[in-house]
Amino acid sequence: VTAQDAHLPPRPRRVGLVIVNTGPGKGKTTAALGLAMRAWGRDMRVCVIQFVKGADRTGEALAARRMGMEWHVTGNGFTWTGDKAEQRRRAVAAWVDAQEKVASGGYDLVVLDEFTYAFEFGWLDVNDVIAWLRIHKPALLHLVITGRSAPPELIGYADLVTEMVEVKHPYRNGISGQPGIEY
Amino acid sequence: VTAQDAHLPPRPRRVGLVIVNTGPGKGKTTAALGLAMRAWGRDMRVCVIQFVKGADRTGEALAARRMGMEWHVTGNGFTWTGDKAEQRRRAVAAWVDAQEKVASGGYDLVVLDEFTYAFEFGWLDVNDVIAWLRIHKPALLHLVITGRSAPPELIGYADLVTEMVEVKHPYRNGISGQPGIEY
Repeated sequence: VTAQDAHLPPRPRRVGLVIVNTGPGKGKTTAALGLAMRAWGRDMRVCVIQFVKGADRTGEALAARRMGMEWHVTGNGFTWTGDKAEQRRRAVAAWVDAQEKVASGGYDLVVLDEFTYAFEFGWLDVNDVIAWLRIHKPALLHLVITGRSAPPELIGYADLVTEMVEVKHPYRNGISGQPGIEY
Repeated sequence: VTAQDAHLPPRPRRVGLVIVNTGPGKGKTTAALGLAMRAWGRDMRVCVIQFVKGADRTGEALAARRMGMEWHVTGNGFTWTGDKAEQRRRAVAAWVDAQEKVASGGYDLVVLDEFTYAFEFGWLDVNDVIAWLRIHKPALLHLVITGRSAPPELIGYADLVTEMVEVKHPYRNGISGQPGIEY
C-alpha cells in the first residue's frame, strides 16, 4: 500500500444485496425495472418473475422481450378479485420456479415482483421463505422484492429497503393510468 | 352506448403527466429508468438528460446505448465538489438543450434526472422553469424529474409525486455501492 493508495476509497466488496421496494406509493415495480435495465446494461444475467400480475403485454414485458431479458408472468390478472384458490396455486408454483432460478447460480439479479402479497394473503410463510433464502441464495446474487406492506421479517432480512410514499397522485384528479407510464 | 359498454371503465383520457421522484431514499433515478424502459417497450420516443452526473459508463447509460435510447450526460462528475461556476454553466446549458427537446414535440417521454439540484444550488429559478413548461410542454409529453428536495412549486405543478424514503441502507453496514445496482 503506497501513500497514494491510502487516500483512495477501499475497493468495493462485492456482495449480493437483498433489496426491498415497499410502501403505498408508485415506483416499487418501476424502480425494480430500472435495476433490471441497469444490470442488463452491465451484461449481468437478469431474471424477472412477476407474481399476481397476469399481463404479458405491458410496456415492461414488451421491452424485456426485445432486450432478451428473461421475464415470467405467473399471475392470472391485475385484479384482486377472482378465484382465490387459483391465485394461491399460481403463487406457490411461481415460488417453486423462483427457488429453482435463485438456487441455480445462473443469475446475477433476480426480481420477485409483487412477491410481498404472497405473505399478505397467507399463500407463503415469510419465515419459511427467508430461511430458505439464507441457505440457498448465492452470496453474489442480487435479489429484488417488491410489493406493499413488506413484513418486518423481510425488512429485517433485507440489506436495502426503500419505502415509496405517495405525495400526489393524478388519479385523484380523475386521470387514468397512462400506457407506457403505468403499465 | 350499449348496456354492456356502460359497465366498462371509461376509455383512458390520454394526458402527458409531470412526474417527480424525490426524497432522501434510493430509487428516484432508478424508477425513472424503469419508466424509460416501459415507454421504450411501447415504442414511445424517449430522451433522458442527466444533470450533475458526469459518468457515461454507468449500467443505465450502457443499456440505453444498446437499446438505441437517446441519453445525454451533462454534468462533470458524481461529486458535489469541484468548480461551482463550471457546474452552473453546464446545468444552464443542459436546461437550454432540454428546453429544445421538450418543445420539439419529438418525444413522448423526457427524463430530467437530478434536475432538482439546479434549483437547490440556485442555478435555475423554479418559477421560471415552471412558467416555461406551462407554455411549451406538449400536452401529451410525459416529463419525469428526479432529485432530492423537490421545491414546493415543482410539487404543486406536478401530477404525480413520489417520495422515496430510506428504511434501511447497506452503506450503514459498510457495504459499498455495487456495480449494476448502484450505477
